Amino acid sequence: MADPVLPSSGVLSPLGLDAVRPAPGFWGDRIALNREVTIAHCQEWMEREGWIGNFRGERPRRGREFSDSEIYKLLEAMAWADHPALPELAQTVARAQEGDGYLNTRWSGSRYTDFEWGHELYCYGHLIQAGVARLRTHGEDVLTEVAVRAADHVCRRFMTTTETCGHPEIEMALVELYRATGAERYLEMARRFVDRRGLPALGEIPFGRAYFQDDVPLRQAQAFRGHAVRALYLACGAVDVAVETGDEELLKAVEGQWERTVARRTHLTGGMGSRHADESFGDDYELPPDRAYSETCAGIASIMLSHRLLLATGDVRHADLAERTLYNVLATGLALDGRSFFYANPLRVRVPAVPVEGVNHSAEGGLRSPWFDVSCCPSNIARTLASLPAYVAAADRDGVRVHHHTPGEIRHGGLALRVETGYPWDGAVTVTVLEDGEGRIALRVPAWADGTEATFAHHGVVRPVAPGYAEADGPWRAGDELRLELPMRARWTFPDRRVDALRGTAAVERGPLVYCAESVADEPPLGDLAAAVEPPREHVVDGAVELEVRARLGVPDGGGWPYAAAPGEAPDGQEAALRLVPYHRWGNRGPATMRVWLPV
Amino acid sequence: MADPVLPSSGVLSPLGLDAVRPAPGFWGDRIALNREVTIAHCQEWMEREGWIGNFRGERPRRGREFSDSEIYKLLEAMAWADHPALPELAQTVARAQEGDGYLNTRWSGSRYTDFEWGHELYCYGHLIQAGVARLRTHGEDVLTEVAVRAADHVCRRFMTTTETCGHPEIEMALVELYRATGAERYLEMARRFVDRRGLPALGEIPFGRAYFQDDVPLRQAQAFRGHAVRALYLACGAVDVAVETGDEELLKAVEGQWERTVARRTHLTGGMGSRHADESFGDDYELPPDRAYSETCAGIASIMLSHRLLLATGDVRHADLAERTLYNVLATGLALDGRSFFYANPLRVRVPAVPVEGVNHSAEGGLRSPWFDVSCCPSNIARTLASLPAYVAAADRDGVRVHHHTPGEIRHGGLALRVETGYPWDGAVTVTVLEDGEGRIALRVPAWADGTEATFAHHGVVRPVAPGYAEADGPWRAGDELRLELPMRARWTFPDRRVDALRGTAAVERGPLVYCAESVADEPPLGDLAAAVEPPREHVVDGAVELEVRARLGVPDGGGWPYAAAPGEAPDGQEAALRLVPYHRWGNRGPATMRVWLPV
Repeated sequence: MADPVLPSSGVLSPLGLDAVRPAPGFWGDRIALNREVTIAHCQEWMEREGWIGNFRGERPRRGREFSDSEIYKLLEAMAWADHPALPELAQTVARAQEGDGYLNTRWSGSRYTDFEWGHELYCYGHLIQAGVARLRTHGEDVLTEVAVRAADHVCRRFMTTTETCGHPEIEMALVELYRATGAERYLEMARRFVDRRGLPALGEIPFGRAYFQDDVPLRQAQAFRGHAVRALYLACGAVDVAVETGDEELLKAVEGQWERTVARRTHLTGGMGSRHADESFGDDYELPPDRAYSETCAGIASIMLSHRLLLATGDVRHADLAERTLYNVLATGLALDGRSFFYANPLRVRVPAVPVEGVNHSAEGGLRSPWFDVSCCPSNIARTLASLPAYVAAADRDGVRVHHHTPGEIRHGGLALRVETGYPWDGAVTVTVLEDGEGRIALRVPAWADGTEATFAHHGVVRPVAPGYAEADGPWRAGDELRLELPMRARWTFPDRRVDALRGTAAVERGPLVYCAESVADEPPLGDLAAAVEPPREHVVDGAVELEVRARLGVPDGGGWPYAAAPGEAPDGQEAALRLVPYHRWGNRGPATMRVWLPV
Repeated sequence: MADPVLPSSGVLSPLGLDAVRPAPGFWGDRIALNREVTIAHCQEWMEREGWIGNFRGERPRRGREFSDSEIYKLLEAMAWADHPALPELAQTVARAQEGDGYLNTRWSGSRYTDFEWGHELYCYGHLIQAGVARLRTHGEDVLTEVAVRAADHVCRRFMTTTETCGHPEIEMALVELYRATGAERYLEMARRFVDRRGLPALGEIPFGRAYFQDDVPLRQAQAFRGHAVRALYLACGAVDVAVETGDEELLKAVEGQWERTVARRTHLTGGMGSRHADESFGDDYELPPDRAYSETCAGIASIMLSHRLLLATGDVRHADLAERTLYNVLATGLALDGRSFFYANPLRVRVPAVPVEGVNHSAEGGLRSPWFDVSCCPSNIARTLASLPAYVAAADRDGVRVHHHTPGEIRHGGLALRVETGYPWDGAVTVTVLEDGEGRIALRVPAWADGTEATFAHHGVVRPVAPGYAEADGPWRAGDELRLELPMRARWTFPDRRVDALRGTAAVERGPLVYCAESVADEPPLGDLAAAVEPPREHVVDGAVELEVRARLGVPDGGGWPYAAAPGEAPDGQEAALRLVPYHRWGNRGPATMRVWLPV
């Protein structure tokens, strides 16, 4: 079956990519854009920057020490999208592999001399994921052979050592290769990589060992910490190992870390990672919007982890967080043109970004860029969108659970369904049964729908539903219809008082979307305002719902010493209408200031 | 005259180090500690780390590319302190100088191949400052000769090029060498370095050219920006050039940038620099306490700039900021033992630091460390404390202005004064005239004394005084007494509403000192509280005034999704007494959490 994650056990089972056929809509459009535009865009830039040329032996070698991984993520995207450029690119990669399976364009002459920063095993991880994608969508070919040879080399070289890589990734890749081939050495190698981390297995670095999760063994950690992408990839691998080895303790450890991280270290958008200096999680409740790092790749890693935990536990909270992150991080990372990307996703931008031609040497948020020096995010977006149907629904023993409401067809077991919806703009989800059949149909009622008077209609009855699932059992006749109504109303959301940087502010959400005030050109400035907490007005602009709230602006002044003997007064300048756009659409109108959290 | 800054014109003139003789007290104790402990501590660590050995040709070379500068800052400290270890260390340096004056242990074989990061001119800057210090305290010797040869090499090599250094510093050093020697080429070279910056003169780097102030010419900038130490050192050099060349436009540009920076980019402590990633200023009002970087060296650079602007303009606001920064950054950077240092000075620490043995590879604040990989701060503290008497008072045409109230003797022109005070713990400052004489005596009334009913007594009259100066004219008879009373009461201070990260909080100050809540071991936790805005209680502990405020604590919970449909309630757990310590004393009781800004 074609799917990026195929656990051998768990409360839920993936349906496989072929079981979900997206139609035009929020995600269907992006999946098509990715296949038609983004994948080729990534390949062009990897050629232009010389990262593909590295595999042809072109000198001097170009790009950072981990640039090989970008080609592998692109190959994974191509595999899921059945893209015609894959075979030739795979051949280019294959020719660079050495006789014993070693493959790295940077470290070929000095193998494994820098585990902290070398990224060799990290690169293999992405290569193996590409190979698994190809195996499951096409069957054996040159790419799958390269991946298997590399994995076998890794098992021979590292099975009995105490070493590991500074950047986790290979762990989940090896488990998936085990799932795809049945060869237990891959699972055993992954298990050992997870267990030896934190003993410690790596050297000291200026950021400290927590940066690469080598400070304590994973089972003993309390929350995700250090570099966010590293922490989340490691957690994915740990869940995969736990599921395949029946290691309940390990699974519980990751779930506990997830709980605390979601409660204390996650931005409203679902974005993870507060700090720019080391792209890391902050301490508990350290969530300043200004410098929210919220790397696109960390959002993707969080979606990957949510998916694994959802399948393993069936806990619908993981689908809720995945939805939040899909709409507010993944969708934000890609411009509407499919050719430019955010690396960091701050929740506040005080100064409009200065447009950059070509490669953006800075990864700060502000304006989407076509490419970066460290360009991990574009190819990560590409592989995720190419495999996105795998996240839409899952199966349990009774039938199908639809987690993400997107138009298209879903087929599994005795069920063939057509989903029609304008989600996330509109909350009506209509499911039509296409063929006579059996089985339970469960539609997720998102956590955000709490208190919205959501209803579920089927078999001629309409009933209120609460967050969780709206479920109905068959038998079904072709033409039967189920209808979930999730009232879409903009709502104000307030932060926990322990998040210092958000005290006295509120944000607006609507359905799964976080909104933000955006100001371009002569629109009202966002630096000094107090918004009225009233129901926002709605406007439809280019098919998207925009909102408007009233705010009192401050009277501009030069400012003196900004600390005084009395509390500051509220702004008492003119009243203005603030335009709120979905956070994922911000930055598409040119350089702008932006804020998610509004002083109220 | 012995003084680190001797402008040839300006509203105020320095008195010279010999004119101010500090007695035991807040600063006198630290000046003595520095001379007796800190200077030797720095030399020991520079030997241990091999940075002095680099000058002896020991291989492999050790330390970062700018480590030579640490030896030069230490030599400057030794010169001001007339330390006996100077001559031998200066000889070691001299032997490494090449025939044409070039001197750098890192780049000797590849001179001037990396202006962005090489730091060669930066290192010369510190060498020249050391040479000037030696010239003014001792006269010509091997150190002054090395410095002059290096400066002459720089003038020959760079006078007609378009190049400059990625790290400003040499500009102010060359102006001071001009002041010390009268050789105009040094001033001209400094002027050219200031003017060519921002044309641009350097290459693009990932942080962007603003990092090293090469984005726009200095005259066009609106505020200090980029790497804080770089920005402030450059501003010092620009003021020096402006004063010596009579360039009013340049001086006004720096003053304007200072105004905006103080109004919008400065922490309550006077600390400058918000961001860890590039040790830089943030955008306007981006002043989160959590990640306040506030590098000790940036505080020192700000004190250096305040001093220059005070002398040039006579504007007492520069003395106010200098006082704030002296007491809350410089004094914070050095532990009470004189052997350990803060590099970063955050205003909030959520998780107690883990003690590190030996070199601290991380420069995060939390626990003072004996040494760092980049150990710019210890030697910067050493040279500043060694020359601190120069900052205490200045002269105008009428007499003496005392800017910093510290016990000791001050002699200038017809005035000989003894100052007695327990400042900053006590606000009474008694000045006794030691010899019959003439001249105005002006005592600074700090900005913080506004509204405190401060009084000034002399010639038998007592009158209220407002911030600025309390002044009295002679003639004076030996034994005459003047008495400034600055009532010391703890006061609550509130942030400008535009500083998002501080909304809903207040801090406590007392005199020039910022206070913070510190929690070690089983003291009340600081993560979730609401403080009562009432007059704090005072306690004297080890000669320092500590404060106590009441706060309501939150009931601990595991936490769920930290964003909700209703505003969070105030903490309603137990009431506790919070211990507030002077910010400069925090972290001396072991690993602790800390916060300056308290939710109220």
